[in-house]
Amino acid sequence: MENWLTKRAKLDPNKTALIIEHSDFTFSELNSTVQLCAKKLYNHIHKGERAALFISNSFNGYIAILALQQIGAEIVFLNSRLSSDELKFQLNDSGAKLCLVDDSSDYHQINKVNTNKIFLSDILSMQPNHDYQPVAEFDNNDVTSIMYTSGTSGRPKGVLQTFGNHFYSAIGTSLNLGINDKDSWVLTVPLFHISGFSIMMRSLIYGIPVYLITNFNEEYINKVLVNERATVISLVPTMLKRLLNNLPTDKHYNKYFKCVFLGGGPIDNWTLLRCNMLHIPVIQSYGMTETASNVVALNFADAERKVGSSGKALFPVNLRINHADSDGIGDIEIKAPNVAKGYLNKQSLFNKKITDDGFYKTGDIGYLDDENFLYVKGRKDDMIISGGENIYPEEVENIYSKLSGLESIFVIGVQNEEWGEIPVAYVTLDKDAFLSGVDLIGFGREKMAHYKVPKEFRLIKEVPRTASGKVLRRKFKDIEYEKM
Amino acid sequence: MENWLTKRAKLDPNKTALIIEHSDFTFSELNSTVQLCAKKLYNHIHKGERAALFISNSFNGYIAILALQQIGAEIVFLNSRLSSDELKFQLNDSGAKLCLVDDSSDYHQINKVNTNKIFLSDILSMQPNHDYQPVAEFDNNDVTSIMYTSGTSGRPKGVLQTFGNHFYSAIGTSLNLGINDKDSWVLTVPLFHISGFSIMMRSLIYGIPVYLITNFNEEYINKVLVNERATVISLVPTMLKRLLNNLPTDKHYNKYFKCVFLGGGPIDNWTLLRCNMLHIPVIQSYGMTETASNVVALNFADAERKVGSSGKALFPVNLRINHADSDGIGDIEIKAPNVAKGYLNKQSLFNKKITDDGFYKTGDIGYLDDENFLYVKGRKDDMIISGGENIYPEEVENIYSKLSGLESIFVIGVQNEEWGEIPVAYVTLDKDAFLSGVDLIGFGREKMAHYKVPKEFRLIKEVPRTASGKVLRRKFKDIEYEKM
Repeated sequence: MENWLTKRAKLDPNKTALIIEHSDFTFSELNSTVQLCAKKLYNHIHKGERAALFISNSFNGYIAILALQQIGAEIVFLNSRLSSDELKFQLNDSGAKLCLVDDSSDYHQINKVNTNKIFLSDILSMQPNHDYQPVAEFDNNDVTSIMYTSGTSGRPKGVLQTFGNHFYSAIGTSLNLGINDKDSWVLTVPLFHISGFSIMMRSLIYGIPVYLITNFNEEYINKVLVNERATVISLVPTMLKRLLNNLPTDKHYNKYFKCVFLGGGPIDNWTLLRCNMLHIPVIQSYGMTETASNVVALNFADAERKVGSSGKALFPVNLRINHADSDGIGDIEIKAPNVAKGYLNKQSLFNKKITDDGFYKTGDIGYLDDENFLYVKGRKDDMIISGGENIYPEEVENIYSKLSGLESIFVIGVQNEEWGEIPVAYVTLDKDAFLSGVDLIGFGREKMAHYKVPKEFRLIKEVPRTASGKVLRRKFKDIEYEKM
Repeated sequence: MENWLTKRAKLDPNKTALIIEHSDFTFSELNSTVQLCAKKLYNHIHKGERAALFISNSFNGYIAILALQQIGAEIVFLNSRLSSDELKFQLNDSGAKLCLVDDSSDYHQINKVNTNKIFLSDILSMQPNHDYQPVAEFDNNDVTSIMYTSGTSGRPKGVLQTFGNHFYSAIGTSLNLGINDKDSWVLTVPLFHISGFSIMMRSLIYGIPVYLITNFNEEYINKVLVNERATVISLVPTMLKRLLNNLPTDKHYNKYFKCVFLGGGPIDNWTLLRCNMLHIPVIQSYGMTETASNVVALNFADAERKVGSSGKALFPVNLRINHADSDGIGDIEIKAPNVAKGYLNKQSLFNKKITDDGFYKTGDIGYLDDENFLYVKGRKDDMIISGGENIYPEEVENIYSKLSGLESIFVIGVQNEEWGEIPVAYVTLDKDAFLSGVDLIGFGREKMAHYKVPKEFRLIKEVPRTASGKVLRRKFKDIEYEKM
């Protein structure tokens, strides 16, 4: 296919491409700005080389991403919340020739790393290189982005995402949501995540504007959703709750608003009920870095009827449950043109996740109901087997999430001579809340099968997380706790 | 990708897939019907084999197409208006193992051909073959349909269309028109043409209903467009004019109606003006059998502003004008994932149409204005478009060359209000030979599809030629003749 940016600038030169605070840019203006940036960067980086990006959700960051793509360089997206050691590892592992640093953001961690840095604010004063030409084509098989994913164990792995991955991902979503040229997408998730970058690619492929939100300010975002013609916003559950809490009772989202596109784990029923009352459709979805964003999503017709489900596998996606138990619960496996090409420098590790007949083993477990709706039970590695019964920590945690006073709860399997493993809960409480172990066990026994109820509750001060905010379940065993 | 029909039946089992007269079929019902038909046909045809189809726009024809696709057989679409000689050639050339014949249609031409025929009405009584399984996947690189196109010279060529061709064609159109799950498409163009078959594929890919029109009855079609929630209809100019002439002045198309999707040559301004007054948006487009339907189309925003243009190259399509003259007019060349794989048995001929850098030479000439809108000037070689059908003068001339008494014949397109163009023949006779216009029309009707037969024969004294002896086709219109 023709280069998506130059193609879109030809198709819709005068259409708005990007809205950031009080500035609008058409596709033609966006293209010119990107090409000028690429022309300058071309002094330092060429087609087929690899460049790392340390950016926040800024205009300069947005332009830098597109400029590298125009040059034909592979973009290594760095999570701006990583420690300097983690950044060092990813820069070394990727062999990035240079690292573009967004100096409008907090860059002290990357500053500690000894690498070839270019500050985005310095690009402006560079001389344009007149040998530069944007790539003529985006080849479906070519890698355009590399994103590191920690997984639950071992070193982070660089996921190789191709143009084809992003194209089929975008098409699967447009076929599901019925996107048209009057739509627009609010981008407040990080640009360096697949959730954010995929919105940029959709903007080029669909020809729709992006509202780029530079920092998560509930009041500002609600104003955009109320006053502007913003039709879709990608959110994770925490963000959605913050928006709802901030929305004045006499306001509602603009009449063209289509949906909250929700990723990043399950949402509680109470929040869904609030959205329902406010006429805010919520489209739940399921996806990962390795599938270049979502592969499963609900649609409008079923959103209410199938609460708790992530939806159906999108049109280009073949999904199956393998090694299912007698309840139909088993490994979620996916075959689709949006499954990534592999892991950088660790192709054999990636190949191990591909079955003989070409399905990608997501590492998640779940089941399909009799109408082909997917219900995700959690990570296979997190599953607890106690006395021959499978316990899914997320299921237990979701039930406890409705209990007031409990700030967070994580259920872990602990070795036990009699049962093999037993479920144990690590909890943090709301300020001034008081809950005893007896209370917690009592609550659980009312709500679920007894074997699922944690045998012990352990009060902790802080939840161990990765830089990107993922909970590090294996770390719980080493932290200090107080028996409840 | 997963098999499109079984996938769509999983995604939208209860959604309407097909409406024909007073019957509705959901995707689940359509799938069941098709699978049963395939199970029976499997006694006669297998994956990888080739089957010809001689059908009209009937329910049985619709099912037969999908059944062959489910088996994984390559479908050879026969134009039901061809003569028996033409049919014989295509059946031989394609090596079709059998020919499915729609016996609800006029099948006397195919009946004259000695081939392995199965009548669609006989399938019902066949025993199902329990070894049958629908193909699990539709591979983008696999051929699914073969359609013959005559070209400007020589014998017709079988165009090899892959699943990928049809997929990218559908996606290009949905990105342009912003199709969503509330849309539906009225199918009144022939199923055996790419214009009709592509609507079937879009239905599976988008998950939208098709209104299948079994014969072109203006009154009935207008009723569908007025009373039903029909949003798009594909038409050629002649059809559009007939609908407009029939539409009662107090009626208008239903409020969800989106557009007439117009192919098959240029439309006059007067008709466009009428559509405009009646609030019927017209989306002009440009495409061919070799590109699996349209590659260029107008969009809603520009439809009025750019009258006379076919629009812009769709998102997956790279289009350029090569060898342009000083006015910018030159060869229309296309690079896109919807360009066909080749010509059956004539790959070297197809390869000659591909430039060194991978562009397909359409054989059409035209230009792009400064906003990248395409204006098609016509066939490089004088093709005639009459009522949406392509007529290649040299093909007709070749057939007549066998008639004794005729010294020479040249077929030219003449402007006609009803058909766009009609073929008219300029002839010279052998000394002392006598042939009347009636004789010549009678001969033609025996040998070729009726639309190809010149509507008028004009006797001339001398053929206009260049000094070097080349025939000057454009000069015919100016010379003296005697009506035969």
